[in-house]
Amino acid sequence: VVHRVIAGLAPGVPVIDVTHLIPRQDVRKGALALWRSAPWLAPGVILAVVDPGVGTSRRAVAVEVRQAGAVLVGPDNGLLLPAAHRLGPITGAVALAHHPVVGATFAGRDLFAPAAAQIATGVDPRALGEVVEAASLVGEPVPDAELLEGRARAEVLWVDRFGNAQLNLEWKDAETLATPMTLEVADSSYVVRCVWAYEDLEPGEIGLVVDSYGLMSISANRESASAITGAVVGDTVWVSQG
Amino acid sequence: VVHRVIAGLAPGVPVIDVTHLIPRQDVRKGALALWRSAPWLAPGVILAVVDPGVGTSRRAVAVEVRQAGAVLVGPDNGLLLPAAHRLGPITGAVALAHHPVVGATFAGRDLFAPAAAQIATGVDPRALGEVVEAASLVGEPVPDAELLEGRARAEVLWVDRFGNAQLNLEWKDAETLATPMTLEVADSSYVVRCVWAYEDLEPGEIGLVVDSYGLMSISANRESASAITGAVVGDTVWVSQG
Amino acid sequence: VVHRVIAGLAPGVPVIDVTHLIPRQDVRKGALALWRSAPWLAPGVILAVVDPGVGTSRRAVAVEVRQAGAVLVGPDNGLLLPAAHRLGPITGAVALAHHPVVGATFAGRDLFAPAAAQIATGVDPRALGEVVEAASLVGEPVPDAELLEGRARAEVLWVDRFGNAQLNLEWKDAETLATPMTLEVADSSYVVRCVWAYEDLEPGEIGLVVDSYGLMSISANRESASAITGAVVGDTVWVSQG
Repeated sequence: VVHRVIAGLAPGVPVIDVTHLIPRQDVRKGALALWRSAPWLAPGVILAVVDPGVGTSRRAVAVEVRQAGAVLVGPDNGLLLPAAHRLGPITGAVALAHHPVVGATFAGRDLFAPAAAQIATGVDPRALGEVVEAASLVGEPVPDAELLEGRARAEVLWVDRFGNAQLNLEWKDAETLATPMTLEVADSSYVVRCVWAYEDLEPGEIGLVVDSYGLMSISANRESASAITGAVVGDTVWVSQG
Repeated sequence: VVHRVIAGLAPGVPVIDVTHLIPRQDVRKGALALWRSAPWLAPGVILAVVDPGVGTSRRAVAVEVRQAGAVLVGPDNGLLLPAAHRLGPITGAVALAHHPVVGATFAGRDLFAPAAAQIATGVDPRALGEVVEAASLVGEPVPDAELLEGRARAEVLWVDRFGNAQLNLEWKDAETLATPMTLEVADSSYVVRCVWAYEDLEPGEIGLVVDSYGLMSISANRESASAITGAVVGDTVWVSQG
Repeated sequence: VVHRVIAGLAPGVPVIDVTHLIPRQDVRKGALALWRSAPWLAPGVILAVVDPGVGTSRRAVAVEVRQAGAVLVGPDNGLLLPAAHRLGPITGAVALAHHPVVGATFAGRDLFAPAAAQIATGVDPRALGEVVEAASLVGEPVPDAELLEGRARAEVLWVDRFGNAQLNLEWKDAETLATPMTLEVADSSYVVRCVWAYEDLEPGEIGLVVDSYGLMSISANRESASAITGAVVGDTVWVSQG
């Protein structure tokens, strides 16, 4: 129905589904999914809805990142900001005016989709509501890993359905550490290698794989590294030389 | 494959998937899904297939509702009529001529999709088969709630995956009843409030929420109202004042 | 993200998802899904990725079947060849040049999608890598059933989610056998009829149904024929007269 609403307001504008698999009301998982894919989505209008607060006083916003040619549209609940910050400095934010409709529990259809469609056809977001301060937006950038001498302190951001535990540690930072490395996670430590493909790991071996987003993930070869190590989202992870 | 067939016959015509999540052979659930979304799908050609009788003598039909600019295409098994009646009076019906092909068990690809694609490009449905009486079509409109003095007799039409039990009770009818109301369902009764958002309910509270389709649903805040009350599809529900 | 990459490189080219439901790393199931649907997908560029060997030395290829107007793009691991052979003789093959990127574990996005998009806009596959011999491609055509006098030796290629066990036995070959037939599968034998619709089978009856791809499948009426007979993928099946 959201697609149909957009097709009616912005005929001919291509619409791409990024994912429908975010668990219900899991704003953090939605925000990270968007943060991971954002560099490949811009330029364009990025519409996202994970919205446990629908119908309450949480704002609906459009967030502009001019440098990337992107406008992000969705609830002001932290869903959009990690992706927005990844795309560049926020250059404008608008609280979308809400035109009350009967049964306003499907904001995706009645508020966000029309706003996104109008912006996609060239309407200035400022025409759709009231300009607000970027600093007033809810949410934070994804934290960077902390780089110390000979070691790095990272965080498990995400565990995918294959059990790979993605870290906020970029490959370009990890490569400054010598191999082998020691990985400390969930009260255990592992001597690990940095590899380029899951298949490069031996059966049962835990390693760091450069994933498709340029980030290191704790991985295993056709096994769940998360199940083996016990790593879960939010865990602190130390990676150190030697 | 159905998309590819349509793209070949009607190049450039946008095609939108409404849902692929109707349980196998559940014509009622498919009909209700279509009935709920129909007002947002028209104008256009609406193709739907939930078809346990495929390959038998059930007819394939195109149903025109001129007032909405809609033609519904699918099996004549009750799937289309609730949506058609919701869009307006049926202004024509055609039994689609079946061009037998080897292995005719995928009517979606070989019969319905080509018909829908041709109609989308401007072909008159009457050119695709034999005109039949609207009265001969299988299926019924969704029943309306019964409005009595100070109370309403409704029916559970649908339980969504979040456990909200949707009633055939429209918000404009429910608001004529005073709050608080008594809700009787599945041999229990609840004093309920009418609210606009799931979040407006207290933890554990059962309430009536105006859903995104302008209809009342028995709902709870981040819990399954269906699991709590035992409400299932087809249950009679009384909503009364006081 | 793959859709977005294609939309960027080949604006306006329609992209159709065939399936996202192939189990992880199940190249055989992916190859059969493609083989089944290939006749309806051509002409066009067919992009497929089921790729347990990503990041290893397996080649990335584009396979041309001029007769069908098709180019298949994907890993050289057996995924593409059954479909390619079904579409016609292979008229060219190219090992795609790999432009290394950081974190090259998402070849779908970084290699296959750009190649498919370029080919869809008219780029000659030969411009995208090195021509290789068709004979060097990994994979085999789907085996044909063996037709003997009064009987046929077939194989279970596929069990769908409804429990239908699809055979590599074409309807035009099966019809040369008289009805009733004897079906031998998984150490049991059944006297079966050949029918055109699941509904034509009695409750509990096992039969051969001509499926939507022109192939015979061992089926039951609203039950899982695979569960009843024990037929699984790869089983040898004899179908004989009388």
